Amino acid sequence: MDLIKVKEALEIVLNNAQNFGIEEVDFLNSCGRILKENIFADRDFPPFDRVSMDGIAISSEAFNNGQRKFNIEGIQAAGSAQLTLQNACNCMEAMTGAVLPKNVDAVIQYELLTIENGTATINLDALKSFQNIHLKGTDKKQGDLLVKENTLISPAEIGVFATIGKAVIKVAKQPKVIIVSTGNELVEVGEIPADHQIRRSNVFTMVSLLENLKIKAETLHILDDKEVLLTKIDSLLNNYDVLIFSGAVSKGKFDFIPEVLNELCVEKLFHEVKQRPGKPFWFGKKNNKVIFAFPGNPVSTFVNCIKYFNPWYYKSVGLNFENKQQAILSEDFYFKPELTYFLQVKLNQVEGKLMATPISGKGSGDLANLADADAFLELPDNRSNFTKGEVFPVITYR
Amino acid sequence: MDLIKVKEALEIVLNNAQNFGIEEVDFLNSCGRILKENIFADRDFPPFDRVSMDGIAISSEAFNNGQRKFNIEGIQAAGSAQLTLQNACNCMEAMTGAVLPKNVDAVIQYELLTIENGTATINLDALKSFQNIHLKGTDKKQGDLLVKENTLISPAEIGVFATIGKAVIKVAKQPKVIIVSTGNELVEVGEIPADHQIRRSNVFTMVSLLENLKIKAETLHILDDKEVLLTKIDSLLNNYDVLIFSGAVSKGKFDFIPEVLNELCVEKLFHEVKQRPGKPFWFGKKNNKVIFAFPGNPVSTFVNCIKYFNPWYYKSVGLNFENKQQAILSEDFYFKPELTYFLQVKLNQVEGKLMATPISGKGSGDLANLADADAFLELPDNRSNFTKGEVFPVITYR
Repeated sequence: MDLIKVKEALEIVLNNAQNFGIEEVDFLNSCGRILKENIFADRDFPPFDRVSMDGIAISSEAFNNGQRKFNIEGIQAAGSAQLTLQNACNCMEAMTGAVLPKNVDAVIQYELLTIENGTATINLDALKSFQNIHLKGTDKKQGDLLVKENTLISPAEIGVFATIGKAVIKVAKQPKVIIVSTGNELVEVGEIPADHQIRRSNVFTMVSLLENLKIKAETLHILDDKEVLLTKIDSLLNNYDVLIFSGAVSKGKFDFIPEVLNELCVEKLFHEVKQRPGKPFWFGKKNNKVIFAFPGNPVSTFVNCIKYFNPWYYKSVGLNFENKQQAILSEDFYFKPELTYFLQVKLNQVEGKLMATPISGKGSGDLANLADADAFLELPDNRSNFTKGEVFPVITYR
Repeated sequence: MDLIKVKEALEIVLNNAQNFGIEEVDFLNSCGRILKENIFADRDFPPFDRVSMDGIAISSEAFNNGQRKFNIEGIQAAGSAQLTLQNACNCMEAMTGAVLPKNVDAVIQYELLTIENGTATINLDALKSFQNIHLKGTDKKQGDLLVKENTLISPAEIGVFATIGKAVIKVAKQPKVIIVSTGNELVEVGEIPADHQIRRSNVFTMVSLLENLKIKAETLHILDDKEVLLTKIDSLLNNYDVLIFSGAVSKGKFDFIPEVLNELCVEKLFHEVKQRPGKPFWFGKKNNKVIFAFPGNPVSTFVNCIKYFNPWYYKSVGLNFENKQQAILSEDFYFKPELTYFLQVKLNQVEGKLMATPISGKGSGDLANLADADAFLELPDNRSNFTKGEVFPVITYR
């Protein structure tokens, strides 16, 4: 058997990233999407010399000449146009967020003042330069790059968009994805399975995984009938950017997916990867359509989806993403076959170190274990013994 | 000044967690919500002795008696009712996911077979017990607890719900939240601000932060007018579970929020926390309504929201959550004031260790820095010098 290695498989998948273009969305709906324009400051930030404490604004010259009592001329509120201090020996009350009045260059906070009969007395020995003033343009200058193209948008960026008045944002368009289950043993979630049947679950797990990427995937079930598969998949290839299959890719008599895809002129890029679970993974493309055909066992489907589909998606939408996350094995582990092993682990952070504790699984069919674990630790295929304290790549899913 | 410490403030916030009850949702819409029932296995898993490789099913007795050639009696497909091997010297082809036929107890994969003219020859010296059979109930027994109440639902749990036929799921009801900005200096995102104005941004940042918790918050803007604030907030207290304010909580002449809340008989639980940014944070409650009044600077609002609101929400919905995440400071840092300092950092994982590098910020107003950082490192208030290599709690927001 000349199975392809995990690293090569991932490379082939990434080399087949596609570009789905750009669309505009309301900025408040852009969280979780990939930014497709550079975002620049529309003005200086702060846009004016900004009062940063509530108190009085004075001329430092008067203070430095020994003056400590200042008559209050007026109030500079946030949201009011800039006032002017008329008499350099007076002061102006000034509020956080307000424009600094003209003719002043220091703000003394109320905590350091005694105010009586319209006069403020300052209880302070020395001023700092521009005390309590956030000077115009100290954070950012007009035209500065605030958020780079290809950033994954988070609440922090939403705030930036609002601040500079970007109500509509260019983001990467999402691929149109359909997730197809096959297998005559499957019944719907609302049905009671016969003894030899089980319920459909993988498509829903994957819908949910893709939802985390803000992709709204559709789903379909097709029975293990070659003619039906041929007709239906042909139509899917015309209507979707990505086809994800779960099941029917191994050596079984009814595992029609590889031959059906072949007959539909989908180019096979690889079939079978040196990994467990998920060895029979089939990957191919037809023109700019990409086909991920995952084995049907729940854990196989799950780990293949986050190991291969996610990075493919990130590259397709332009996100500069490389999973560099690693975790430290917390106990010795033994795995003999010459396969990359995706070990189900529970993660635990101790003093900044990410520890991974194996969950005792019973093979790739054990969906319930996914609910007990947090991540897959990726153990290399060239060894059997893995020692407590060693560091390995980890793929988290919570 | 007798400011409250961060730890005490958080304790008070957590002691005022509320219960918003339970609702039922379609299982496919439950991702990100908090499960409010225990989920049990409706049957054994696997529900039958399950073939786990494509190949032939035989009686191990025949094999152990030295027999290596088996005539193929039929095919056991996945999704077909259980067949019976009629002649113990024959075999049955059997597919992954199929019920194991009667009268067999081992499956030999196609890779180890030669099949010619309806006869399979096995190229194998010894059988393992129940080779390639995933025995009924080995993963879970009927009635076993699969997912515990109060779990944060992820795609792994979605798969479990589908598997056991839970189409409708009990989850924690979300609080009804309104986020209110105040401040006459604010204009809408689509408007061009005058020189002394800025755009509203904090409410949108918080809407987006709460969206990550699957809470759909509403928003409102109220001008700095005490009478208007009294009337509007009174009405909000009747219509929402949680009021979040941004701004008008400090010592300014127009910082009406604390006195307005006081006049509306909202009990102040604390005002001002020994922290930077976000010192003027005001927290209170009226009956079962909870009020978070955050200072208006963008970074203050942001860090207060994730430091206090998120844990309050988790406790309210029953999630057993404690942020134990820590990171390792990657360079020396100095901060003099006796305040807990939420240092903006960029995170970077190196060999399983989470490293935090300070971002040079220019005070709490600098929203654009939030877009450059990933997290806040929480530096304690009883020291000024923080040394490279030391470990501190970290609050991530990406």
